[in-house]
Amino acid sequence: MEKVSIFGAGSWGTALAVVLAENGHDSLIWTRRAEQADEIHNQHTNNRYLPNVKLPENLNSTSELNVAVQHAKTIILAVPTVAMRETCRHIQELLTEPAIFVHVSKGIDPDSLERISEIIAEEIDETLREAIVVLSGPSHAEEVVLRHPTTVAVASSNMEAAEQIQDLFMSNYFRVYTNKDVIGVELGGALKNVIALAAGISDGLGYGDNAKAALITRGLAEITRLGVKMGADQQTFSGLTGLGDLVVTCTSVHSRNWRAGNLLGKGQSLERVTEEMGMVIEGVRTTKASFQLAQQFDVNMPLTEALYSILFGGVPPKQAVDQLMTRGKKQEIDTFFGI
Amino acid sequence: MEKVSIFGAGSWGTALAVVLAENGHDSLIWTRRAEQADEIHNQHTNNRYLPNVKLPENLNSTSELNVAVQHAKTIILAVPTVAMRETCRHIQELLTEPAIFVHVSKGIDPDSLERISEIIAEEIDETLREAIVVLSGPSHAEEVVLRHPTTVAVASSNMEAAEQIQDLFMSNYFRVYTNKDVIGVELGGALKNVIALAAGISDGLGYGDNAKAALITRGLAEITRLGVKMGADQQTFSGLTGLGDLVVTCTSVHSRNWRAGNLLGKGQSLERVTEEMGMVIEGVRTTKASFQLAQQFDVNMPLTEALYSILFGGVPPKQAVDQLMTRGKKQEIDTFFGI
Repeated sequence: MEKVSIFGAGSWGTALAVVLAENGHDSLIWTRRAEQADEIHNQHTNNRYLPNVKLPENLNSTSELNVAVQHAKTIILAVPTVAMRETCRHIQELLTEPAIFVHVSKGIDPDSLERISEIIAEEIDETLREAIVVLSGPSHAEEVVLRHPTTVAVASSNMEAAEQIQDLFMSNYFRVYTNKDVIGVELGGALKNVIALAAGISDGLGYGDNAKAALITRGLAEITRLGVKMGADQQTFSGLTGLGDLVVTCTSVHSRNWRAGNLLGKGQSLERVTEEMGMVIEGVRTTKASFQLAQQFDVNMPLTEALYSILFGGVPPKQAVDQLMTRGKKQEIDTFFGI
Repeated sequence: MEKVSIFGAGSWGTALAVVLAENGHDSLIWTRRAEQADEIHNQHTNNRYLPNVKLPENLNSTSELNVAVQHAKTIILAVPTVAMRETCRHIQELLTEPAIFVHVSKGIDPDSLERISEIIAEEIDETLREAIVVLSGPSHAEEVVLRHPTTVAVASSNMEAAEQIQDLFMSNYFRVYTNKDVIGVELGGALKNVIALAAGISDGLGYGDNAKAALITRGLAEITRLGVKMGADQQTFSGLTGLGDLVVTCTSVHSRNWRAGNLLGKGQSLERVTEEMGMVIEGVRTTKASFQLAQQFDVNMPLTEALYSILFGGVPPKQAVDQLMTRGKKQEIDTFFGI
């Protein structure tokens, strides 16, 4: 039995805490909201994020940051990308012994263009972090708590730490693969939201499965091109955290990014969609970051550029798609990875 | 304007003939059934295969093989895999000048384990074939005739011929990429039906998007492993004819293979499913072929083996999935391409 602290009580943080608790570990969720901590701790539910789910009795929760930091030397960071830096700073202030940091969020800092492991490395003193691990893959939290078969990857430059995390989570319904490619795993998870937005737009325009399959395929190709230039392993993008996560995000109506794209494709403005969704649409922020990275690394990313022109340049979705379809003739492989 | 003959008046052959006719080419469909040829030629419909679709006035049809063979030096073979060898033999008997052969079928000969281009090469005399081209990709015929954006690849060892075929088909809704990798394009199209069957089983068992994404990802990995051993280019499997076609087949309820798998997952026997579908389930034949190829080329294909054990070994689907999930711990990339 290991002790593990999970920071963030959204659906994904909670689902991962459930997997750990069911594996017999002493799993403690920290949430800023005392009421939510009480609900998880005493009523064994988290109704706002995982309605109708009974959480294990041995899953504990606290709203006291100090208690959660002292609880374990394995720290799961499950807060949104926007809150990552601040959460790390608070943890750093309270940390007395080195810990393994596992982050499970998908995004890129829109200001610094940094990946999340880079943010953690900046904010947590080197002497206080044994390793940084990223856990990612095609995994709706709602399905994990139903014990539906799910596979994810854990990546770290410290393979021993990655294997420890693999051991913690592995169960008969939650299968964990290790991977050395932190950059590829992080970029795949973040950039897939751009393509999910585009897939939603295509569906919103009334186009069919053929168009969406093309978007997914060519979208993955351009994400891969960028990733390889940024130092990732090409194969990672064909794996669970690339292709796998992309497929699940582009074909599920549960995906917020797909839904936002769908509304855009139906003719609604970005302002209107943002208002209607009532929350930050990660794919919109990531499209801006991806567009900037494409310029910085000099990578040809036609889908990202088309999406950027829709979101920030006022180009009507149909016109942007038509431009993509009527480009010059291409060879598939020569243009595929562009390398 | 070019003259083109299309052999086979199913939904896909007809849709491709429509694209050609709309591009202004003299497009002639051959079908064995005189009534169907009359319907296409005179009423401009093909109601059995493409209900509610008005075909172009300049699209012609004949049931006389000799007329179709003499019509053009570009021959599109759109007959089912089982009928390919016999159709080639009949064409060969009537052919007087060399032609380009383009096949658009997806399968492997279950007896000889040959790809379709190999069957064509065997049956058509070398002096009578200028080139063999395969056209494949994520493309429901029903969407193509609605002019929904669609992308495909054409592959040939003769690049000039591939580019001619690209020029023939390319339009503002039908985008064609060239590719040199005939083996990869043919194998991707055929083997994806095995994974579609598995995806259907997973859905039939009531598993969710996470499980299906894992199946698609790991399924593509094992198809790639086999393909590379058989001489294909790894990148082709990440392209339109690999990943793209796999995604569209696994996520569409229109896919026959997915539907057959879904019934198997719900507990019906293979005999019952075959009866209910009322036609050959290509993925069942291809699972057998793929299983044999895996042994012949000594490639580890756990999904194919699991599916084979369900179809031909009487193993209950749930037990086969549970076995897949509880295998030993793995590294993602080392086990990925297995090379």
